[in-house]
Amino acid sequence: MKFGGTSVANIEKIKNVAHIVEKEVKFHKIIVVLSAMSGETNKLQKYLDEIHSESSIENDLVLTSGEQVTIGLLSSVLKRKKINSLPLLGWQIPIITDENYEKAKILNIDKKRIDLFFKQFDVIVLAGFQGVNSKGFITSFGRGGSDTTAVAIASVLKAERCDIYTDVEGVFTTDPNIEVKAKKISQLSFEEMLEMASMGAKVLQTRSVELAMKNNLSLQVLSSLTKKEGTYIIDEKNLVEKEIVSAVSFSKNESKITISGIPDQPGISAKIFGLMSQNKINVDMIVQNISQDGIFANITFTVSSKDHDIAKLVLEENIKILKYKSLHTDKNVSKISVIGMGMMSQTGVAEKMFKTLANNSINIQAISTSEIKISVLIDEKFTNIAVKSLHDVYNL
Amino acid sequence: MKFGGTSVANIEKIKNVAHIVEKEVKFHKIIVVLSAMSGETNKLQKYLDEIHSESSIENDLVLTSGEQVTIGLLSSVLKRKKINSLPLLGWQIPIITDENYEKAKILNIDKKRIDLFFKQFDVIVLAGFQGVNSKGFITSFGRGGSDTTAVAIASVLKAERCDIYTDVEGVFTTDPNIEVKAKKISQLSFEEMLEMASMGAKVLQTRSVELAMKNNLSLQVLSSLTKKEGTYIIDEKNLVEKEIVSAVSFSKNESKITISGIPDQPGISAKIFGLMSQNKINVDMIVQNISQDGIFANITFTVSSKDHDIAKLVLEENIKILKYKSLHTDKNVSKISVIGMGMMSQTGVAEKMFKTLANNSINIQAISTSEIKISVLIDEKFTNIAVKSLHDVYNL
Repeated sequence: MKFGGTSVANIEKIKNVAHIVEKEVKFHKIIVVLSAMSGETNKLQKYLDEIHSESSIENDLVLTSGEQVTIGLLSSVLKRKKINSLPLLGWQIPIITDENYEKAKILNIDKKRIDLFFKQFDVIVLAGFQGVNSKGFITSFGRGGSDTTAVAIASVLKAERCDIYTDVEGVFTTDPNIEVKAKKISQLSFEEMLEMASMGAKVLQTRSVELAMKNNLSLQVLSSLTKKEGTYIIDEKNLVEKEIVSAVSFSKNESKITISGIPDQPGISAKIFGLMSQNKINVDMIVQNISQDGIFANITFTVSSKDHDIAKLVLEENIKILKYKSLHTDKNVSKISVIGMGMMSQTGVAEKMFKTLANNSINIQAISTSEIKISVLIDEKFTNIAVKSLHDVYNL
Repeated sequence: MKFGGTSVANIEKIKNVAHIVEKEVKFHKIIVVLSAMSGETNKLQKYLDEIHSESSIENDLVLTSGEQVTIGLLSSVLKRKKINSLPLLGWQIPIITDENYEKAKILNIDKKRIDLFFKQFDVIVLAGFQGVNSKGFITSFGRGGSDTTAVAIASVLKAERCDIYTDVEGVFTTDPNIEVKAKKISQLSFEEMLEMASMGAKVLQTRSVELAMKNNLSLQVLSSLTKKEGTYIIDEKNLVEKEIVSAVSFSKNESKITISGIPDQPGISAKIFGLMSQNKINVDMIVQNISQDGIFANITFTVSSKDHDIAKLVLEENIKILKYKSLHTDKNVSKISVIGMGMMSQTGVAEKMFKTLANNSINIQAISTSEIKISVLIDEKFTNIAVKSLHDVYNL
């Protein structure tokens, strides 16, 4: 069971978590993974920003201190309920990681030590987000890293399931703030969850979903404030019914960059995206086509809006190397995606999407597809109408 | 160098500490021991109080989290100043303690590991107040325990001196709030510092002074905000000049308890103080005398005013066992002490004290003496006049 920062934000909420654990421990032993109180990690990050901290070992040391408080408090509340509980920090298991501070990878978790603890205790309350490297220094897994702790430990223990408690009731067919008819999804495949980057990432750290998929560990995302079942994220084979389209997701923070008149020679794309990567700019959609005469190519791709200015500057500075004719960028675009395992065996899903957008007079600026996702780029001002009409047409 | 909570209360103050360390590291390698930001440990204690935490392992885990933040921040600031710094928690050295959570005793500090760290780093920024026991769980040294960390580590390293930076300029001849003529003391013996419980304990954890005395480690108490020398606390043999009286201290939070008409039999005092100890009441001054007829004894002792009511109740409930005739208590008393190594070889110190109080028409209710301290109990309302006149008469 993993509880995020909003679920342990104060003493009252920690007592609520203890109540949930109390009901569950009647049936089996539990590892509870906790984040820091919500706001705490932001406060610590602010301190680090104030001193312009550049040292990763110190950053991780400071940022991992908040979990120490929540695990101690929850374990103490559980003990007052006569539950045999033990609080543990990452290094006390230990969760061994590599040397990559601030985004460390887990190398090993000592299952035997956990088995030993479970001989004596019924609940282990484990600090999320952190491990220890071979030098004995504390490392962290990046923001949202407590999800990764929970999935990793559940995988090692071959747990039946990993329940991720949060402040939403699960994963929805689209953002309920835009479409009031949005419904909680009961089952999703790992692949669908991963494709829902824009909506899903708010709920689960992407990395934790990848890890769960690799270990075939079923997840449940649910609310710590209601008693309702949440969204199960499971192996595709176990999906009771494969919905053709499971969800409509969107992202408004996109900028479109179009480079026209590039000589159609090998290595030019590699140069463009090499430059982006060197400048730590994440590229999302990429669409390339060759012009009629077969001599020049056009490339369109999207970057996060915060990276727009630096991406544009880098491309302008390198016009001689890239040999393109013109550069056009647009900050007012939105990416709309329909996602669903069912579309692999179903024809006409894309057609329905394009037709629906056309019926609403929305122009499609670029298209990119995977086996379970179709994404289009449109003018940002049409985001809401696009999401609502697609949510309708796929009967979500 | 040890810096308390007020010296690392915010980013600006942490930068000031870095500045002090920067000047010192030009001459030698340093261990810097830090407390949590002032207010932080109180906030954590409040959380524990809210959940009525009764579990020591959890209490220590929660309470030791604040130092993790300050050591990370200071070390990062030092690195930006190109100082080769490493932040370490208690378990990372490790500082091995016994199993007594909340007041753990240090069993061992691995000097070889510290030597190894010093081959690579010029400054070690160490979390105060905490160690780790043989089970691998975090233990704490009680409030003010960072002083103990600093003294213990300095002793193990056979450091030349341990500088305790705080928010006062040193130890004063008396409380400057009562006597504006109070002066900073330049040198004190360990024994004098220990006898100054009421004034000294605000500056240094008593336990750390005992540890320094045992290891003959010189201490300096000084302010992190001025560049002035502080008060040196050193071996008696090294005192340049033994002042007859070094300081006048006082404590207003005393209550006097007088038990009269106790049968003069062996074991009665043991019973009385056994009862106090069972009820966790600390007893300070004890004065006992036998009445003229040699059959009955009177015992007067003091307890902290907060313990007055429970002490009185316990004694009343046990009147049949203790067989005393009458009980009298007084919450309005004050303990005044004059302290000084010089009084061992000087006659007339006590006489001067009693005469001075008499000249001010202050009645002495009880007297207790040690080789370097004379304490008297007086009516609380005479505290200020007593302190001022004694401060004058001993030329402080």
